[in-house]
Amino acid sequence: MDACVRDIGTLLTMDRPGDSEGIRDAAVLIRQGRIAWAGPARDLDPASVRGLPTVSAEGGLVTPGLVECHTHLVFAGNRAGEFEDRLSGRSYEEIAQAGGGILATVRATRQASDDELLRLAEERARDFLEQGVTTLEVKSGYGLDLEQELRLLRVIGRLGQRVPVTVVPTFLGAHAIPPEGRGDRAAWVRDLRDRWVPAVARQGIARFCDVFCESMAFLVGEAEEILQAGLQHGLRPKIHADQLSDCGGSALAARVGAVSADHLDRAPESSFPALARAGTVAVLLPGCMAALGRRDFPDARPLRRAGVRVALSTDFNPGTSPTRNLPLMGTFGMAWCGLTLWETWAALTIWAAAALGMEGEVGRVAPGMAADLVAFRGEDPRGPFYEYGTSRVSWVMRGGRLAFRRDAREGAGAPESPAVGRGEGDG
Amino acid sequence: MDACVRDIGTLLTMDRPGDSEGIRDAAVLIRQGRIAWAGPARDLDPASVRGLPTVSAEGGLVTPGLVECHTHLVFAGNRAGEFEDRLSGRSYEEIAQAGGGILATVRATRQASDDELLRLAEERARDFLEQGVTTLEVKSGYGLDLEQELRLLRVIGRLGQRVPVTVVPTFLGAHAIPPEGRGDRAAWVRDLRDRWVPAVARQGIARFCDVFCESMAFLVGEAEEILQAGLQHGLRPKIHADQLSDCGGSALAARVGAVSADHLDRAPESSFPALARAGTVAVLLPGCMAALGRRDFPDARPLRRAGVRVALSTDFNPGTSPTRNLPLMGTFGMAWCGLTLWETWAALTIWAAAALGMEGEVGRVAPGMAADLVAFRGEDPRGPFYEYGTSRVSWVMRGGRLAFRRDAREGAGAPESPAVGRGEGDG
Repeated sequence: MDACVRDIGTLLTMDRPGDSEGIRDAAVLIRQGRIAWAGPARDLDPASVRGLPTVSAEGGLVTPGLVECHTHLVFAGNRAGEFEDRLSGRSYEEIAQAGGGILATVRATRQASDDELLRLAEERARDFLEQGVTTLEVKSGYGLDLEQELRLLRVIGRLGQRVPVTVVPTFLGAHAIPPEGRGDRAAWVRDLRDRWVPAVARQGIARFCDVFCESMAFLVGEAEEILQAGLQHGLRPKIHADQLSDCGGSALAARVGAVSADHLDRAPESSFPALARAGTVAVLLPGCMAALGRRDFPDARPLRRAGVRVALSTDFNPGTSPTRNLPLMGTFGMAWCGLTLWETWAALTIWAAAALGMEGEVGRVAPGMAADLVAFRGEDPRGPFYEYGTSRVSWVMRGGRLAFRRDAREGAGAPESPAVGRGEGDG
Repeated sequence: MDACVRDIGTLLTMDRPGDSEGIRDAAVLIRQGRIAWAGPARDLDPASVRGLPTVSAEGGLVTPGLVECHTHLVFAGNRAGEFEDRLSGRSYEEIAQAGGGILATVRATRQASDDELLRLAEERARDFLEQGVTTLEVKSGYGLDLEQELRLLRVIGRLGQRVPVTVVPTFLGAHAIPPEGRGDRAAWVRDLRDRWVPAVARQGIARFCDVFCESMAFLVGEAEEILQAGLQHGLRPKIHADQLSDCGGSALAARVGAVSADHLDRAPESSFPALARAGTVAVLLPGCMAALGRRDFPDARPLRRAGVRVALSTDFNPGTSPTRNLPLMGTFGMAWCGLTLWETWAALTIWAAAALGMEGEVGRVAPGMAADLVAFRGEDPRGPFYEYGTSRVSWVMRGGRLAFRRDAREGAGAPESPAVGRGEGDG
């Protein structure tokens, strides 16, 4: 698609490190679904836009499409009960040991049909889209046997055909060890390493290999075996590291050159310089704090001082983070994780793109990048984080095409709209 | 309006203290805008509903319309810059002393026309409505001279005619002392007491008299003079108490029999038994924590142990709480303020109604109460707090009429929707 985006009150390109002021009265020129030019509207060559379709930002803020770099989007079942249980004092580990937690979702997911899983995932993906997300990482991990994991990755592939969002699939067969694997852990890990990882890689249905490295899941040595197998088969490593305890996950992330190390709530600062040298992005997931009733938010400042790029994500999943509001994670990041305004935008755009190895494709408004854009009501770059909790998104563009537009509200909720429907004979 | 609400997966009436399970497969019968009957659908008398309009809850959760009992909705201007400043280390008090804070909003509000203030307020009120709010308290307080305060109360009155929400006006002339009043504080307080309060009461445009009792605003003795004047003129007291420091506000609330004591972040537990005896509702405002970058959330448990009813509110205002998502305050309340599930629902319905002296009119689904209802997607009463950050509201009913219905999403965001508009000749 070719198009010209006009009437941009403020354009935040994320192409000028540290600049959270942006360009006032800007325009963006799109050719064949990619950014061709971005800058002050007065510098736009009139000849270059003659006859092009125009999209108005109505004086609002325009930013790169948001990048959600860590979700567990494909599952069935509901774990709202655990939310209440945890806030009444039961720990995440206790709930898992009692048959709740990840394995409860595995049971429900295994029983659901492909179409049901796809329907649920599509509804959730559209919630993300309506909040400005144009790139969405989705992990498998609620199948926990090879056939089920392959099935979930196929559903993730179909999801990318159904929604106007760029879906990035990650293999997380190493999410938990199900009861049938606990008798002989070494054999289970060997199977993951020697059979599951090669099968996933052969089918070309995942970009990354991820492991939940935690005392209640995979120990650091086990995680390393699986991630190294992924590397040998062309799957770049990601890692759930040091969420509940310092179990060596962040050091492992640096050692294997992981594209990202996620959570890091309990990561030791001594591992941060190695993360910086490895180019590993730290993905902080403050939404878990609400669902777990904790308030010891991960602190971005020691990571930033060490030179580590920090991304933010919802960690959307049915147990520990049921939110699909990525801009709200920006609010949490500024309020409680110590990120500055520019770092917060970077955490949802360029650095989140880097956490998916996609910094050359999405996350900035610059020539050659995908024409993925979000327009927000109001021109202030602080607005989407400051006025939190209700969406300020006017429209979302993916690859130069409008993927979502918030309806004008006129007429909705008129004071005298009647109750609808007439129940003849159904009483 | 007469109507019958059917297909209710779970009905939470809030009429059975402590019951957060609700009634499964329920129905509600509405006559002349009030609840006539509520219970299991199988107990509904078929003759009583024949020919009535039917509203389907599509198997979801139905609760009383939410009651938002503390907002500063009518203002002009934007203070997003202060959000960034505070998170960079400047205190609320420092910003206020430098001419920011409440007085920055007073300057912008005084300059705005009535119509502009109404337009801004209406947009905000509709955001609340879309989150399930059917009763909305709105304070004046950004005028800070008598004529301006009367003007704001008139705008609040017009707002109630424009949106299908029950708007409850509160006079907060004692929000701050503007520079012109600081030379002779005693004279300023006397003027409020002897001239402003009687003028507001005479016009019948406010239900409550509120005071911001804080070292940076009105001291406890000053607050008491103003609240007592309100009482003499028929305005029930509300009070912003002990938010930033323990300055005697909660004890004063009990002493004057305030309908509510709001904030209480720094209130001493020793004042809680008196609040319980006075029937004063404690209104906790956890949204301020995000905007202020604090994580020492107010704790509901000592209040509940003392027998105080606890309500939750956004405190919507441009400085310290820019959110309009009341269910999100329920999430914060459960996760970080120590409320149980039933207490959280009560905090947004019956106890919030009590904070407005309206417990006989709204906040429960019981015969005689206003037919104010919200339907949520999903039947689980934990859902709206657990899946936080994106709205789960299907529709909102006020007085038996549909006030908001979420559009079906089919068709929105189709993958191949073209970029819109064609900018002939505008390049």
